[in-house]
Amino acid sequence: MQEAEEYTADGSPIFDSLDIDLFVKVFANTAFSPFFVMLIPTFYIFQGAKLTDPIVVGSAIYYVFVSLFWLVKWVSRLYSNQGSLFYAPRPFEWSDQIVVITGGSSGVGELLANTLAVKSVSVVVLDVKPIQTQNYNIAYYKCDVSKWEEVEAVSKKIIEEIGQPTVLVNNAGVAQGKLILDLLPEDIQQTFGVNMLAHFWTLKAFLPGMIAKKRGHIVTMASVMGIQGAAQLTDYSASKAALINLHRSLRSELDKRYQCPAIRTTLVCPGQIHTALFATVRSSYPFFFPTVHPIDVVKRIIQALDETHSQTIYLPFYAHFMPVLHLLPDFVSDLASWITNADFAMKKFVKLSGRRPEEGDAPPQEFGNGYKIN
Amino acid sequence: MQEAEEYTADGSPIFDSLDIDLFVKVFANTAFSPFFVMLIPTFYIFQGAKLTDPIVVGSAIYYVFVSLFWLVKWVSRLYSNQGSLFYAPRPFEWSDQIVVITGGSSGVGELLANTLAVKSVSVVVLDVKPIQTQNYNIAYYKCDVSKWEEVEAVSKKIIEEIGQPTVLVNNAGVAQGKLILDLLPEDIQQTFGVNMLAHFWTLKAFLPGMIAKKRGHIVTMASVMGIQGAAQLTDYSASKAALINLHRSLRSELDKRYQCPAIRTTLVCPGQIHTALFATVRSSYPFFFPTVHPIDVVKRIIQALDETHSQTIYLPFYAHFMPVLHLLPDFVSDLASWITNADFAMKKFVKLSGRRPEEGDAPPQEFGNGYKIN
Repeated sequence: MQEAEEYTADGSPIFDSLDIDLFVKVFANTAFSPFFVMLIPTFYIFQGAKLTDPIVVGSAIYYVFVSLFWLVKWVSRLYSNQGSLFYAPRPFEWSDQIVVITGGSSGVGELLANTLAVKSVSVVVLDVKPIQTQNYNIAYYKCDVSKWEEVEAVSKKIIEEIGQPTVLVNNAGVAQGKLILDLLPEDIQQTFGVNMLAHFWTLKAFLPGMIAKKRGHIVTMASVMGIQGAAQLTDYSASKAALINLHRSLRSELDKRYQCPAIRTTLVCPGQIHTALFATVRSSYPFFFPTVHPIDVVKRIIQALDETHSQTIYLPFYAHFMPVLHLLPDFVSDLASWITNADFAMKKFVKLSGRRPEEGDAPPQEFGNGYKIN
Repeated sequence: MQEAEEYTADGSPIFDSLDIDLFVKVFANTAFSPFFVMLIPTFYIFQGAKLTDPIVVGSAIYYVFVSLFWLVKWVSRLYSNQGSLFYAPRPFEWSDQIVVITGGSSGVGELLANTLAVKSVSVVVLDVKPIQTQNYNIAYYKCDVSKWEEVEAVSKKIIEEIGQPTVLVNNAGVAQGKLILDLLPEDIQQTFGVNMLAHFWTLKAFLPGMIAKKRGHIVTMASVMGIQGAAQLTDYSASKAALINLHRSLRSELDKRYQCPAIRTTLVCPGQIHTALFATVRSSYPFFFPTVHPIDVVKRIIQALDETHSQTIYLPFYAHFMPVLHLLPDFVSDLASWITNADFAMKKFVKLSGRRPEEGDAPPQEFGNGYKIN
């Protein structure tokens, strides 16, 4: 009973946990919100302060700085999505969508499938094991997405039986959690097959339909580990790095070569998510490096789809700073991995999800919060 | 006859070409060299200037800045390599080395093999086609490095017949140069097999011998495309991104988990190299984005081996700035790819090297400089 957090049935917490992400959320809506900050000089002026008073000038400068920050962010977003400064994009018609989710029978994929199905979206789940659901908006197709033959066959059936998918969520993922010399050839093939090749296969299968309509949304589930690797994750982090760069090249091809800027691409770079995949791994400093709850990832994906905007989603807050690590001298990034214990965090890893038949069942695990697997 | 450069038999230029890299080289040895800069205030003082004269103070501050830059670089290097500030590392015994080079029958691999063989190093070349050489220091083993079974079998033969390799240069690479929907499943499998899985297979084969001796050097040939992808290179740039992150995770495992910091890891991130791989592609602004000549890559690799220091080699100069792109808003990196024409540069690409049997021969190519292929 190490953790005293309370969880609902789906593993998401009842209360926001007290961590840096909560502070950032509060901060973004107060001291870093242009609307809120604008009130400061206004308040002082109404109290009788002169326009030249240091407090008025200082807070006005701060207001300009805060506004500029959000303006650049907003212009960058509009630019990437051919948005107009004056017109809002047309609203996203959820009921017209057919959403394919790979690895949709567990973890983030399952939660996303169920959440979308409740919104009356047609959801198609591709997974090796069936999804447990009563919702008739979810269609399950058995498919090992690491194999092109299976993806090709299943995609034809889906297009025939349900229609041309409009959203593709490439979410399936697996981790072996072994040191490089302990990785079996089959482990390495599985990691790259599921985490990476599957993206190429599903793109080959579903992108032509989107290009024909010049519309669609592709969500790529990468990981912060794709930005900076760690011990026991050589294969996993390499596969996720490949996805991040695939996302970038794909964006270039859609914009410049297929002339389809309206096919959106959203990249998700989460830290450790509270699902079976890394259930046995505990963060060293949960205050700074909290575990992400699946519902927060799902919320952000649905928001990206709803806004019909290509986005890069970093979750939790610390993930925003990962790309900076590469620009710093080695001793700084080493210090970061020493502080976070990143190279030892995987020591207790047990592969719970994505086990191949020859690997047999995982040993039973029991977690402090009553969350059991097997 | 677009280019008037003169080439020697191996395709390397007789003269340094006039590009930004030449200016950087000159600058690094003059206005940015601590030794040279130190002369400026010294010179003024000897001319009778006072210590408080602006020219003396200004140039002294500049000297401090330049020295700090190199100091941080040097300390970072020493730190990563457990070097001492007072003792030089013991000299590298070239004659004791057994160097395995994958893809060693052409391009950079071939030049490296020949250059090392002349230094009396035992060179082992793994490639699908034999290397044309008379040097008896080069042993050729036929091996498709994308297949674990072949690498496993050949590695056992090498260890038995020649000895335990001390240096592993993972250099084999292939590019398809197709848009994502034109890529055949076999293309994708080949790219990831040769460019990425091969690294895992050769590490599994040769790393145990290095770990036993706690000594060795692994050179990973990545690419600037692994930092920022481009159109027609989705698979290639994804595979190279995977390598960059594999290099990082491997460093963590060697340092922290295998306790082998003296097994060095060098990452090479070159821009376009003047070899058959991208022979049909021309840089838009050769002044800023020059093509790298194989000899420059080989020189830097040999230097890294000789210094027995883990390094990251960016070549040419612009490659140093690629990691910065990720931190800038989208419109800046888009501007960069617009200026460099990165998303259209591959339009004339012809796959000349690494063609699979079913692809047949490449159409004959003739290059302006008299360099012919097929």
